[in-house]
Order: sequence, then C-alpha cells, then structure tokens
Amino acid sequence: MTLDIVTLFDYLGTFAFAISGVRLAAAKKFDIFGAYVVGFVTAVGGGTIRDLCLGITPFWMIQSSYVIITAIALLFTIAFKKWVVPLNATFFFFDAIGLGLFTVVGLEKSLAAGFPFWVNIIMGCITGAAGGMLRDVLINEVPLIFRKDIYAVACVGGGVIYYVLAKCGCPLIVDQFVTLCSVILIRVLAVYFNVNLPSLRPVEEGKKNNLDI
Amino acid sequence: MTLDIVTLFDYLGTFAFAISGVRLAAAKKFDIFGAYVVGFVTAVGGGTIRDLCLGITPFWMIQSSYVIITAIALLFTIAFKKWVVPLNATFFFFDAIGLGLFTVVGLEKSLAAGFPFWVNIIMGCITGAAGGMLRDVLINEVPLIFRKDIYAVACVGGGVIYYVLAKCGCPLIVDQFVTLCSVILIRVLAVYFNVNLPSLRPVEEGKKNNLDI
Amino acid sequence: MTLDIVTLFDYLGTFAFAISGVRLAAAKKFDIFGAYVVGFVTAVGGGTIRDLCLGITPFWMIQSSYVIITAIALLFTIAFKKWVVPLNATFFFFDAIGLGLFTVVGLEKSLAAGFPFWVNIIMGCITGAAGGMLRDVLINEVPLIFRKDIYAVACVGGGVIYYVLAKCGCPLIVDQFVTLCSVILIRVLAVYFNVNLPSLRPVEEGKKNNLDI
Repeated sequence: MTLDIVTLFDYLGTFAFAISGVRLAAAKKFDIFGAYVVGFVTAVGGGTIRDLCLGITPFWMIQSSYVIITAIALLFTIAFKKWVVPLNATFFFFDAIGLGLFTVVGLEKSLAAGFPFWVNIIMGCITGAAGGMLRDVLINEVPLIFRKDIYAVACVGGGVIYYVLAKCGCPLIVDQFVTLCSVILIRVLAVYFNVNLPSLRPVEEGKKNNLDI
Repeated sequence: MTLDIVTLFDYLGTFAFAISGVRLAAAKKFDIFGAYVVGFVTAVGGGTIRDLCLGITPFWMIQSSYVIITAIALLFTIAFKKWVVPLNATFFFFDAIGLGLFTVVGLEKSLAAGFPFWVNIIMGCITGAAGGMLRDVLINEVPLIFRKDIYAVACVGGGVIYYVLAKCGCPLIVDQFVTLCSVILIRVLAVYFNVNLPSLRPVEEGKKNNLDI
Repeated sequence: MTLDIVTLFDYLGTFAFAISGVRLAAAKKFDIFGAYVVGFVTAVGGGTIRDLCLGITPFWMIQSSYVIITAIALLFTIAFKKWVVPLNATFFFFDAIGLGLFTVVGLEKSLAAGFPFWVNIIMGCITGAAGGMLRDVLINEVPLIFRKDIYAVACVGGGVIYYVLAKCGCPLIVDQFVTLCSVILIRVLAVYFNVNLPSLRPVEEGKKNNLDI
C-alpha cells in the first residue's frame, strides 16, 4: 500500500484522536491497558458505529494500521510526556484534520452503501464525532462535544457542503477537498474565535435538578 | 405515505421520547446540538440496538421522519419552554403510548426475522426501554429505568401477553391492540399507584461501597 | 444438548459474570429488573459486541441458556445473600474460568469468520473483558478493568499463546486447553501476587484536571 496523502492524513488524524483518548485516560489514572483501550475507542469508535449501521465489517478489522497507530500514540504519550503539552497546538491541528478526513470518509462510505444524503451527513458526523463521545462515556464524564466548542457541527456543515457541491455537478475530488477544508476551517475558526453553540437552560428553573421527569 | 393511526402514534411516541432526552440534556446545560443528539438517541436508540442485533438496517436510516421529529421536539422545547412543564401529563401519556407501540414494533420485527418468542420479548423490551438507558449513559447518570417505576417491565408484560394471545389463536390485529393497551395500562397504573419493583440491598452491608469485588 | 465439560464451564463463567453484575447493581440500589439487566449485560455484553463486529447473530439469541442462567444468578444473590460474600473466592475462580473460556470462544469464532490473528486476539479480549466494561458504564462508574488488576491483559496473553501454539502446529484441542489454562493462571497469579499494570500519570501535573484539552 502506498502511503498517499489521504492515508497520511488519516493516520495523523487517528494519531491525534488516540492521543486525546490516552491523555484523558491518564488524567483519570488509568493503567496502560486502559489508556490503550480509551485511545483506540476514541480513534476508531465513530467509524465502528458507522460501519455497524451500514452493515459492513468495521474498518479497523481489515487492516492493522489503527491498532498500531494507537500503540504508537500510547508510547509517545508515555515517552515524550513533556512534549505533549507544548505540542497542544499541533495535536489540535492534527485533530481538526482527522475530523475533516473522517467526515469525508464517512460521507463516502455511506454514499457507496446507497443511502440518501441526510443519512450520509449523519454518518459523516458519527465518523468524526462519536469516538470522542464514547471516550467520554468510558472515562465517566459528560461528553465534552455536547457542551463545548463547534465540533460535531463542523462535520454536519461539511456534509451539507459536500451534498450541495455534488448537486451542482462539482467533480468528486474537488468536492472531497472542499469538504475536508470546510470542516477543518469551521473547527479552527470556532476555537480561534471561541464560538460556542447556545446552551439550553433547564426547563424547570429554580430546581437544582430536574432529572425526575 | 398515508399517516395512518399507527404511524401517528409512532410519531407521537418518538416526539415524547425526544422531548424527554432534550429536557434532561437541558438540565445538564448541553448545547443545542448535544440536546439534539440526546433527544435523537432517546427516541431511536432502542430500535437501533434491536435492528443491529437482528442484522437489519436501523429503521431511522430508511425514512427521515425520526430525524425531523427530533428537530421539532428540540425547537418545541426551546420555543415553548413554559409549556413543557404544564404539559407533563400529556408528555407522560405520549411516552406511555410510545412505549407500548415501540414494544409491539419490536415484537413484530423480531418475529418477522424468525426468532423464538423469548427473543421477541427481549427485542420488544429493548425497543421500548433501551433508548432511555442510552440517554442516561450519555448524560452521565445512573439509568433511571433501573431504579424507579415500572418501565421496561411493562414491555416484558406486553410481550408475554402478545405471546399468550398468539398461542391462543387470537387474530394478529387484536393481539397487537391488546398488547399495546396492556403496556400503556401497566405503565400508567404503576405510575398512578406509585408501584415500584423491590430494590436490591447491597450484598455487603456496613460498607459504604462494595464496588471492589 | 449434552452438557459437556466446555458447556459446563461456559455456564459457570456466565453465572459468575452475572453474579458480579447483580452485586454491583445491588450496591447501587437498583431494582430487581435493573439488576437483571446489569447481570445479563455483564455476562453477554462482550460476546454481543464481538458478534456484531463479526457480522453474526449475537450468541445469546440462538439459545435461551444465558437468559436463564442470569435469572438464576439474580435469584441466587437475593435468596442466598449471606452466602455470596463467603463464596467470594469461589466466584472469583468461576469468573477466571469464564474469562479463559470466553477468550477461547472469542478466538475461535473470529478465526472461523476468517479474520487474521491480531483481530482474533482483540475479539478474544472483547469477549472476555467488554462485558465488565459495559457493566461499569451502566452503573455509572469508571470501568474497573481500566484501573486495577490484570484482567483484559490475561485475555491478550491467552490470545498470543493460542496463536504461537497454532503456528507451531500444536493440535487444536491442546491449543485451546493451554490457552484456557494460561488465561486463568495469569488472572489468578496476578490477583494472588497483587500485580497491577503501571498507571499513567496525568500529562499536566499540578492541575487538578486536564479534561479540557
């Protein structure tokens, strides 16, 4: 397999996703195996849910790259701990690239399986964002992507752009590239300008907790 | 597609389930996208687990109604916030109808896939109750359905009635209707008379926590 | 079906896994239905994830034994509560046998589905350890297997031994038996000598929490 540019970005995105899982596991004092599992789930969880919904074999069971990249991410975090924080901006950029690329992969796979555009957009979003959701469930935190930043919404935005360009007769390769860049741009600009979606306020105010519906 | 009575109840149930997800997300100050995801998972999560277990495409990927109804539920909760609490009794009734209908759908789909009666009952129960379980996992709470009220048990009761009537040669349409009404009745009566299942007591008393097995 | 020795161990392992789920649910004051669900998910959750990834029908939908054994485990925990704690060592041993047997079953099923050795090892590990992970997610605790003891790693160790022996031309039945014993031995020795994997330390020291990446 030649390591083309798409594969390279896919691996960098996987690496960045795995690093984020390993770091959060470390913050919870997980052991190294637990950290590996959380890193792996963060990296491949979204694509796994997508593939199960599409009725195909999870992508990471076809080639061993993702298992290996997660191991490298774990070793990297342990060995170069002092580098991880200074490299925050780098990881953030890898993560944004991964988000964009995963979105495009999700869109393509769902399209290839014959689903309509709105399913494709959801699958793009699941591919990009569900890994981080599963990560937060495993470390027993309220999923960050539900409360902070533009993250999954960047995937949805990319999905809409992908669909509109395809409808306009845009060549596939251009469409993919523009979608990828859009997701990255939405994500980067949202963090740069600290844009968040509006939060909902509890329905019953004055009560500390309205969990008992 | 004609909006027949079953479809109408299905949509009302989906709406009530989505509202319950959105409300709990609001109580945790999720952003609007997070609230949408929690509402959607609450509404379609049970049926998705069922369909994956049965080896068929998740039902919400076939038609866009469920994606749209969840969006309406989100907008409704935001726009008519003051109405949500006064309408509690209405939502509770929709929710009970949804529970009953989802149970019947789950029973039917599992039966159509050729599984024995006890699998059908489990699938009916998963269809009705697993969405609420996933919702509580996502908002990082101990699932309510495990601790309070007769909820999943109403689905199991409906499943048993469905099986007994079918064995007795009851016509399908009557069987479905009786099952639907049974689930709703069990649920409504349990809440009205405040009936709960007995709780288990910790195996090791005197210890604050026996999580270290 | 004749109750051969493998089936007997499978059932004892399922029983021990279900007991651990019921006990943890009891510690959280779940009602009896909730305890049943947690026991069931602990017992069959790992195999279910494996079967969904392999694209086959979840094993517990084919025969009713697992549903029944979980019910017996629930009744046992309620009726013989005073016995549960004194029998801790027995349950631990059943659990270790279950872990070993589940690992072998996972390896075999994945191999039969035509996957390469590293997927088989992961499937063995998921079969043995993912049920406990799902259990801890349902009771809203950070998964124990990520923080304590050699557990999932015993499955991985067994998987590697299985592969090496198969490569060396070892007869299947011997290979299975050695793998089973290896997993049990690794698990028992690790607990006996209180061996744990090293924990990761938070990447950002001096901060209480680095969850905001």
